[in-house]
Amino acid sequence: MITTLTGTSFIGYSRSTGTQPCGQAVNPATGEALAPVYLSATSEEVEQAMALAAAAFPVYSNLPGKTRAAFLRKIAEKIEAVVEDIVIRGPQETALPEPRMRGETGRTVGQLRMFATLLEEGSWVDARIERAQLDRQPIPKVDLRSMLRPLGPVAVFCASNFPLAFSVAGGDTASALAAGCPVVVIAHSSHPGCAEIIANAVIAAAKECDMPEGVFSVLYGGGRMVGQAVVKHPVIQAVGFTGSRAAGTALMDTAAKRPQPIPVYAEMSSINPIVFLPGALAKGETALAEAYYGSLTLGAGQFCTNPGLVFLPEGQGDEFLAKLKSLVEVGSPSTMLNASICKAFADATESLSNISEVNVLARSSAEKGHGQCAPSVFTVSVEDFLKNEHLQSEMFGPGALIVRGSVAQIEAAIAKLEGQLTASLHGTVEELTQYSGLVNALQQRAGRLIFNGFPTGVEVCNSMVHGGPFPATSDGRSSSVGTMAIYRFCRAIAWQSFPDAALPLELQEGNPLGIRRME
Amino acid sequence: MITTLTGTSFIGYSRSTGTQPCGQAVNPATGEALAPVYLSATSEEVEQAMALAAAAFPVYSNLPGKTRAAFLRKIAEKIEAVVEDIVIRGPQETALPEPRMRGETGRTVGQLRMFATLLEEGSWVDARIERAQLDRQPIPKVDLRSMLRPLGPVAVFCASNFPLAFSVAGGDTASALAAGCPVVVIAHSSHPGCAEIIANAVIAAAKECDMPEGVFSVLYGGGRMVGQAVVKHPVIQAVGFTGSRAAGTALMDTAAKRPQPIPVYAEMSSINPIVFLPGALAKGETALAEAYYGSLTLGAGQFCTNPGLVFLPEGQGDEFLAKLKSLVEVGSPSTMLNASICKAFADATESLSNISEVNVLARSSAEKGHGQCAPSVFTVSVEDFLKNEHLQSEMFGPGALIVRGSVAQIEAAIAKLEGQLTASLHGTVEELTQYSGLVNALQQRAGRLIFNGFPTGVEVCNSMVHGGPFPATSDGRSSSVGTMAIYRFCRAIAWQSFPDAALPLELQEGNPLGIRRME
Repeated sequence: MITTLTGTSFIGYSRSTGTQPCGQAVNPATGEALAPVYLSATSEEVEQAMALAAAAFPVYSNLPGKTRAAFLRKIAEKIEAVVEDIVIRGPQETALPEPRMRGETGRTVGQLRMFATLLEEGSWVDARIERAQLDRQPIPKVDLRSMLRPLGPVAVFCASNFPLAFSVAGGDTASALAAGCPVVVIAHSSHPGCAEIIANAVIAAAKECDMPEGVFSVLYGGGRMVGQAVVKHPVIQAVGFTGSRAAGTALMDTAAKRPQPIPVYAEMSSINPIVFLPGALAKGETALAEAYYGSLTLGAGQFCTNPGLVFLPEGQGDEFLAKLKSLVEVGSPSTMLNASICKAFADATESLSNISEVNVLARSSAEKGHGQCAPSVFTVSVEDFLKNEHLQSEMFGPGALIVRGSVAQIEAAIAKLEGQLTASLHGTVEELTQYSGLVNALQQRAGRLIFNGFPTGVEVCNSMVHGGPFPATSDGRSSSVGTMAIYRFCRAIAWQSFPDAALPLELQEGNPLGIRRME
Repeated sequence: MITTLTGTSFIGYSRSTGTQPCGQAVNPATGEALAPVYLSATSEEVEQAMALAAAAFPVYSNLPGKTRAAFLRKIAEKIEAVVEDIVIRGPQETALPEPRMRGETGRTVGQLRMFATLLEEGSWVDARIERAQLDRQPIPKVDLRSMLRPLGPVAVFCASNFPLAFSVAGGDTASALAAGCPVVVIAHSSHPGCAEIIANAVIAAAKECDMPEGVFSVLYGGGRMVGQAVVKHPVIQAVGFTGSRAAGTALMDTAAKRPQPIPVYAEMSSINPIVFLPGALAKGETALAEAYYGSLTLGAGQFCTNPGLVFLPEGQGDEFLAKLKSLVEVGSPSTMLNASICKAFADATESLSNISEVNVLARSSAEKGHGQCAPSVFTVSVEDFLKNEHLQSEMFGPGALIVRGSVAQIEAAIAKLEGQLTASLHGTVEELTQYSGLVNALQQRAGRLIFNGFPTGVEVCNSMVHGGPFPATSDGRSSSVGTMAIYRFCRAIAWQSFPDAALPLELQEGNPLGIRRME
């Protein structure tokens, strides 16, 4: 390994001197504890990280976009330089295979560079110019110019299921840094080593780019202790989080109860309904079952876009179910990300199988090793589905519930669903018109609508919406993936009657940055 | 009067049959109750309004932007047709003079037409197109297109201080209807007659434009009863509110505790600091005092942008204070909007004058009539200001606190201020550079920065930001004035791999609406 792991937090450019252990990574495939022991940041060090972030904000937020872009590009470069460390440590901590670690590293540096490109182009700030009209009657019009500005220091929680792309230098961090916000990361107890490797890379980039020290800190000590203290701290102005509904709503509560409430962007819980309309089934149920099974079991089902709920019109779908059953029965078990995710999935499938109205379609008969789960699929009638709202609970892993009923009943059931990240519809082009009520109902409940496809595989681009009504996210107006994610950490500010030279470059009369403006 | 007032709620196109009185308007200048007695909507009628709004949403939200624009223009036309009713009833209910009622009517119809123009142009939806790249390695890129879509039915609370521009068909309603959201208005007990006149106009416009019935309802019964029931209702997806901090935070609590939390846009409390730098005072303190007094007492100080806090550098400002004192002492009393606002202002100034560190600069000696308040100005040292956070409480009316200290102390005090709608700075161009720390501190705390001007007078335009960090607004990322206000009621939705004909027109390949898109 190039990086030596020391087990201590990053308080700006210093390392923590705390001595209180807060755990070790555990290899989920073996149960073996991995060195080093990680140590909690002390309360004083949390305060210090906050003070550094507060001091960094006016400096960092006023750097030109191109300077922040150069910093993001340097972070990407430094991460690429430690990819061999990641492919050693990552699989030990997460049981994710090496190709996934390489792919996720690519996505992570890709996200950083995407935001760098956005900053270099510069038009994302939504600059709006209204010039003075001194002769306007009955009162003169003043000069008023607005643009988006960063909110302030942001707390980012690492996600268990994305040790890179939604962790230390993942999408939340990249979008907050791009917006001009210093970031304080709370490391996840499942992959503290990956966090340390990446944190070293970010800090090295910050130093090389002469960033103000408090632009970045990474704290160990856990979400409940250190994380809550950070979210309560008056310096913090927004929160980014990907994880469970329980943890996400706890953060929402904490943020709402602050003397100054702040926005929380928690990406939490989604069962990503798929509706198979008659026309899709008519084209071949077996192929559909195979494709669906692939999406359900991708990454051992540990994606927020995992399709855990299927609506199947009655009178069709027997072949689909037969094929799916045969696939699930011989489905390979997978080592889950950590012991608690493994247990939660086992508990969820167990409790589902104990509900009398729910039938087991298939459970894998393969023998499971340490920390492993295997695919499970259940069926229920649409009537019974509607009677029991617990059937909408997310099973995080390769588990699904298949609901059977008439298309009219399916449409009524969709209207009762909680908010979702995605909703997929399989059918013919004609059915999109024929069942427009159903399409509308799906649209009201989700952030992304997919036609004849599956929700796993989230493209990082300008048009991606990775968000949706609660509980998919805490704030359904936001996306945590793609360039839209930057808007979560900004607010518009207007300057009235300011002299040209005192305005941000984006708003100056000569448009020196050459950006697109509304004027 | 053209309009006959009946005292009943508008449940879509029907009128309420409730018989429970919920109060009458009271002429604040005389204490006289004004007919008719208003009657609460019943619980069943609230449910009915919700059901109508829910049914209207899929229809109304899918109308072309130009059709919604025509509806907004028709509302404006219908309001203009009842302006003579407004100028009779409005002053009776609010003590606001006839020219203000005419001016506010103009602003109200102007806002409606501004949003109509925005919809007719169409680019506001932030359409983003990413085309498929089927040959991309290692995996093909899917076609993904996104745009803003309305959240769902919106609850709008009328504001006491803007019986037209922030009430039944005011900025919140106009922006929500523009976005594609049905609106359920909760009328304010201070001006129920104005509400009824305008509601009749909106309903007439909706019928003429063949809008779905539930696109608009207006409920009497008060914020605490009917208002809370509406905000708790699962159909409602966002809330617009302008009013007190206590009422606004109560709505935030209610919305956060729903099974599905929803966004609340509450514009609440701002004391709108003004900093007079040495260079501004050197140019003439007397003229500055006159201009400041004009802003402080405009509309009897009953504007959310009223400048209630002034920072004056020590060693200067004696002439400013002397002039201000002389103006305040002979200041005319004004009839306040209602008895409770009048009492709250009297209580606030009384409690300020009881704080030993606070000195009375001047109080008007003019005799006050029924429901009247007169200007009051207080001074305090910056040290004492920092010791007592209650000194940041809003006095809603013509009252101000003047804080004296060194410029360095003023900068430190600004960093301790709560969030503000506006912050004004008077000085020379050179001082903007010399005191850049102070300018930065103001920027962190406010939504609009004003140079050598005063915050009252809010231009309704593309670049206006009428919002700011809590408690100025519940959501500092939003503006309740200008075209930006529409974004409060939208979320982005992405369509993946949809056939062209099934996409919204805004996203179709041929760009049939000719809007600006990111592609």
